[in-house]
This record gives sequence, structure tokens and C-alpha cells, in this order.
Amino acid sequence: MQTLQQKASEWSGVDQQDAFAIDEINLFDKLGLQTFIDLSTDFYTRVYDDEEEWFRSIFANSKKEDAIQNQYEFFVQRMGGPPLYSQRKGHPALIGRHRPFPVTHEAAERWLLHMQQALDNTTDIDQDSKTRMLNFFRHTAYFLVAGNDLKNQSQGAPPCKHGANKPAAV
Amino acid sequence: MQTLQQKASEWSGVDQQDAFAIDEINLFDKLGLQTFIDLSTDFYTRVYDDEEEWFRSIFANSKKEDAIQNQYEFFVQRMGGPPLYSQRKGHPALIGRHRPFPVTHEAAERWLLHMQQALDNTTDIDQDSKTRMLNFFRHTAYFLVAGNDLKNQSQGAPPCKHGANKPAAV
Repeated sequence: MQTLQQKASEWSGVDQQDAFAIDEINLFDKLGLQTFIDLSTDFYTRVYDDEEEWFRSIFANSKKEDAIQNQYEFFVQRMGGPPLYSQRKGHPALIGRHRPFPVTHEAAERWLLHMQQALDNTTDIDQDSKTRMLNFFRHTAYFLVAGNDLKNQSQGAPPCKHGANKPAAV
Repeated sequence: MQTLQQKASEWSGVDQQDAFAIDEINLFDKLGLQTFIDLSTDFYTRVYDDEEEWFRSIFANSKKEDAIQNQYEFFVQRMGGPPLYSQRKGHPALIGRHRPFPVTHEAAERWLLHMQQALDNTTDIDQDSKTRMLNFFRHTAYFLVAGNDLKNQSQGAPPCKHGANKPAAV
């Protein structure tokens, strides 16, 4: 049986080593807090304005400013900065905390589309950092799709099929 | 509705700030890799030898040496050392990865009993570090009990009742 991380690698096209190349340098030291705030603000502005109602509705029960803070605090903590997220909310527990949301293949791709555009729009992020972050985000998005499938399994439904709609590697 | 971290604090008796006081110093730099290996080896030796079959059986599908490695790599990564766990397995995703296991109140308390004894038996761990780690472990154990209750909710069963059996604060 495939593990969560094996599924994430296969479905995302990003292997484990590339996904966690964010740990080879300290991206927080390199980019600074404001860059992460700008990135998450740009990202969620795109999400909350998304023309696709099915995607926008996933976030409908959260305030935009809370979503921004949760995201940049997690990114800062995960990419070498102070543990802002855990000080306020505890363990990231990515799969557990995404449990209320339908993290499908399609939702992952739309999340990644907005994030790619937000990264492109955040000019303080150099190309090397951008590549590391995109690989991390793409792998993580599909890690959460794999986590989402656990939910379906527990309810007796078959897991989603991903093979027919496998995304291209970054 | 209480969040996962609010439940963890209430049920464990350890507030957020005390739980994450592990981040105020670098415990990996202070204690070193071998201490974490020794701690996890001692802990899982107790677990796999537990006279309580119900508890021992939770771990029956994992090899002891794998359980040891998973644990000390996570501890090292979380307590200021290199990201050994993520390099090999990806996100810790504590709730998601504990999903196959019945993380009940009773299982949390028995886990903590063995960990308390393992900490006491690992003489390289000073009292201050031990207090920080125990608070982190106690809070985290109940964070996972809260995560376990999500599982019951999705299956239509009511969440476990904890109020009547609330543990004393550390």
C-alpha cells in the first residue's frame, strides 16, 4: 500500500527531496516576514475573488484576514522562521486541519494556480526560492489530496481515482 | 465550538504557551542526537513489553525499530535539529498519521506514563528540558485525542466524553 508521501510524490510529480529542498536554505532569513505576508495577502485576494464559486465556497466560513494570518504564520514557521503558528494554534497537523474541506485533485490544482500567480506577483521572491516553494506547495497540495482520500475510505466510499487526470510534473 | 488546540489544553491541563516552551531553547543543540535515540529506544522498549495487551496491540503492525526511528526523527526535527523526519517521510501531519490508531484518553495516559518513565531513565536529560518535553508531550497527546474524536464525528457517533475523566494538570 502506498504511503501518504508516496502518493503525494506520484500525483504531484515532485519527489520527496525536491519538495523539501526548502530546508536546504533558510527561506525566512532570505526573504523576510513582510514577503510572506505579501505572498499570503496576494494569494487569498485571488482566492476570495475567484470567479469559480465551487472553489471560493471552500473558504466561505473563514475570514480572509484569518486565512492570511494562518497561512503566512505557517509558512514562516516551516521555512526557517520563528514558530508563530504553533505559538498561537499548536501543531500544524496539515491533514487534520484540512479535514473539513474537500481537498480534491481539482481543488489542489486551483490552489496551485493562484499560488503560482501570487508567487509571480511577489517580486521580492527570487527564482531559486520560487522554485523551491512551488515544489513544496505542489507536493504538499497532493499530500493533502491523499489525506482527503483517507476520509472517503473511512466512510466506506472508494478513494478518488487520480491516475486518469495526473498533473504534469513542475 | 472548541478548536483542537483548545481541547488539547483543557484535557491535558497544559496551556499552549507551556506546551510550546520547547521552542524557547534549542533542545536538540542542548541534548544531542544520541539522547533522542536513547529516549525513543527506552520508550518503545517499554511500549513493546507492556503487560497491557490492549495498549501493546496498537503498535502490533509496526516494527519496533521503525517506531523508534520515526519518533526520534520527529523529535529531533521538532526540537530544533535537522529535518530528518521530513527528508524521509514528509510532513509530520500528526493527526493524519495517527488516524489508523485508537488514540483514546486511556491510550494517551498510558503513552505518557511510559514516556515519563523513559525520560526519568534517560539521565542525559536535565530537569528543565524534561519539564518542557513533558508539557509538550502531554499537550500533544491530548491534541491527538481531539483529532481522534473527529474520526468518531465523521462516522456519525458522538465524540467521547472527557469531562468526567479529566486528567490532573502536570
